[in-house]
Amino acid sequence: MAADIVKAPSRPSGAGEMFQLLRDGAPRTRAELAQITGQARSTIAARVEQLLASGLVAPTGEAASTGGRPPATFAFNPAARIVLGVDLGATHATLALTDLASDVLAEHSEPLDIALGPGPVLERVVAIAHELLAAAGRARHEIASVGVGVPGPVDHETGRPKSPPIMPGWDDADVPAILHEALGAPVLVDNDVNIMALGEHATSWPDVDHLLFVKIATGIGAGIISDGEIRRGAQGAAGDLGHVAVPDRTDVVCRCGNTGCLEAVAGGAALVERLRTSGRVVTSTADLVALLRAGDTEAVQAVRQAGRDVGAVLATCVNMLNPSMVVIGGVVGIAAEQLIAGIREVVYRRSLPLATQHLRIVASRSQQRAGVLGASVMAAEHVLSAPAVEALLL
Amino acid sequence: MAADIVKAPSRPSGAGEMFQLLRDGAPRTRAELAQITGQARSTIAARVEQLLASGLVAPTGEAASTGGRPPATFAFNPAARIVLGVDLGATHATLALTDLASDVLAEHSEPLDIALGPGPVLERVVAIAHELLAAAGRARHEIASVGVGVPGPVDHETGRPKSPPIMPGWDDADVPAILHEALGAPVLVDNDVNIMALGEHATSWPDVDHLLFVKIATGIGAGIISDGEIRRGAQGAAGDLGHVAVPDRTDVVCRCGNTGCLEAVAGGAALVERLRTSGRVVTSTADLVALLRAGDTEAVQAVRQAGRDVGAVLATCVNMLNPSMVVIGGVVGIAAEQLIAGIREVVYRRSLPLATQHLRIVASRSQQRAGVLGASVMAAEHVLSAPAVEALLL
Repeated sequence: MAADIVKAPSRPSGAGEMFQLLRDGAPRTRAELAQITGQARSTIAARVEQLLASGLVAPTGEAASTGGRPPATFAFNPAARIVLGVDLGATHATLALTDLASDVLAEHSEPLDIALGPGPVLERVVAIAHELLAAAGRARHEIASVGVGVPGPVDHETGRPKSPPIMPGWDDADVPAILHEALGAPVLVDNDVNIMALGEHATSWPDVDHLLFVKIATGIGAGIISDGEIRRGAQGAAGDLGHVAVPDRTDVVCRCGNTGCLEAVAGGAALVERLRTSGRVVTSTADLVALLRAGDTEAVQAVRQAGRDVGAVLATCVNMLNPSMVVIGGVVGIAAEQLIAGIREVVYRRSLPLATQHLRIVASRSQQRAGVLGASVMAAEHVLSAPAVEALLL
Repeated sequence: MAADIVKAPSRPSGAGEMFQLLRDGAPRTRAELAQITGQARSTIAARVEQLLASGLVAPTGEAASTGGRPPATFAFNPAARIVLGVDLGATHATLALTDLASDVLAEHSEPLDIALGPGPVLERVVAIAHELLAAAGRARHEIASVGVGVPGPVDHETGRPKSPPIMPGWDDADVPAILHEALGAPVLVDNDVNIMALGEHATSWPDVDHLLFVKIATGIGAGIISDGEIRRGAQGAAGDLGHVAVPDRTDVVCRCGNTGCLEAVAGGAALVERLRTSGRVVTSTADLVALLRAGDTEAVQAVRQAGRDVGAVLATCVNMLNPSMVVIGGVVGIAAEQLIAGIREVVYRRSLPLATQHLRIVASRSQQRAGVLGASVMAAEHVLSAPAVEALLL
């Protein structure tokens, strides 16, 4: 999944374990840490010193005194390191320099065509990264980790795109190595939908343990949060819904050679093409949204039906995964409303009562920022993982 | 999920943490434990004494000496406790008394109609449990935990069946409380497919992290292993495939009121009914298997087509979850061969290359014993969970 990923030392340090305990952000005194861990005061004192020296933990003030000098409290310090989040779409790049809690220090978004290939695109990413470092007054070596989302399947082990259909020239490109060379930090790569799911979950629904994030744009894909964690499957390909068969839509032929694929039935490009065939002047999803705003009946019906088709596939996913929340992203405003109305119609009809009695189907809250925030979350989680912290404390 | 589930004490004991380290079964010396944990020899000695006293850890012999008296080694002792696994099907009950490694001490299977209701069925389960205790020469109070699988949806929080279609009288029955009252141990309940998935995974494919277990019988359902753990979803309803729509089979009406449901298209009862309509003498799946053995073309075609219909739904699941293995259970021999051939046809055609390049689709190895072994695994995992061990060591 990444270049330069650290390995856990064979012997975990007590300080590392203590850090995982402090990661929740709550301030604690040395006495509280001694009580929680059952370790001797002298051991606690040494470990707190080690964590303070790393910067990952900082003094947060004083606890209420029970008589005498009030004891100092310590907590996880998200400002200790910075990470870079990179969200690459088909036609845009959004980058953010954040702290370890994904609070943004500097951010930039611009149109960028992924089809230019890995050389020019990653060169531009590195240039933007340097601009962000300058804007935030930070140095390159301060970047502890880089998270990248790309609009196509990624091999989870290597972080390389795998036969991505809309990323010509990117197949098997060593994105982690190229960015590691330029930025000097470990690089993690995942597909855009997984990082959007991570970003939406971390920033808007951190307490929802079973969430399905569905991106509906030119392509259609899902990110699965189950038992609180993203689930990528055996090769990192989980959530690939674009070429799933929609029940009873075998009349539609897909560019992949199969019939009835969700993307060919309900994807943005398919809708635009269908409306054009019926005489509307549409060349982009922006035109489609304009038709919806103007109340064009055929456009409204097409988007509503796309919602039903997506719903037919999501009904299977809901029965299969039993999430408590389905979040629809990649589409906003009036188009999202019509789509979600169609999705709800079918999911509530086709799913089992036990799976839908507490199910919410909602629009994404983090919207366009889901991807870049998710990339930052992925990078920060790597920096704070037990093996990375252990290596840092050696 | 269960009556009498222990809660974690607020302060974890060092001995409990040491036990989780020893759970892998490898023998270790006191010196090795001191090296791994970084704890003082005196602390290690006290914790080892505590674990030896609980019986969960036992001496395993001596390590090679480096001069002087060879040091003693210790390891997890699966024989320390016994658990009861209960697999209730539509028409059978299989019970096993096992140790904590699911090694069977005594086992019994008999026909038992789930439709008799919770009173008579659970009374019989308790009677069989006592027969097994007698056969193994053990006492009731030695049962540390009971795992139960039932043929219907179960609310994960309470362990109660939720509107189970083939279990008349069981809706909301407090199975954990009834069995806890009779057997005096914590009781965990899950649906039969989840426990079959647990049993198949633990006994046959412990190293496969992403496995989809599919039971095909009168009903059709799945158990999901993802990142090495069973995933039950928000209400414990994950894997409910019976009423998922099969693409292009809306001609078939299901008893649930929808059309094209997998169970109505490809379930055992549906196949028997279809062959009877076309003039074959079949009243059960056993008759269907006899027809297959006799080479009846229509029976072979019907089962093969059922495989394709299951495959059409599993293709969606494979794209969604990206497992490295799909295991087909609930059906054996010639019927399994024909079903799996049909499943493979469609899954390999309809799934994406990245999701299928390393995908294996195989018949269950543990077969009829998957359920009872899984129930034992679920019970043993509860006994060995961190909170349960902590409570034991208090």
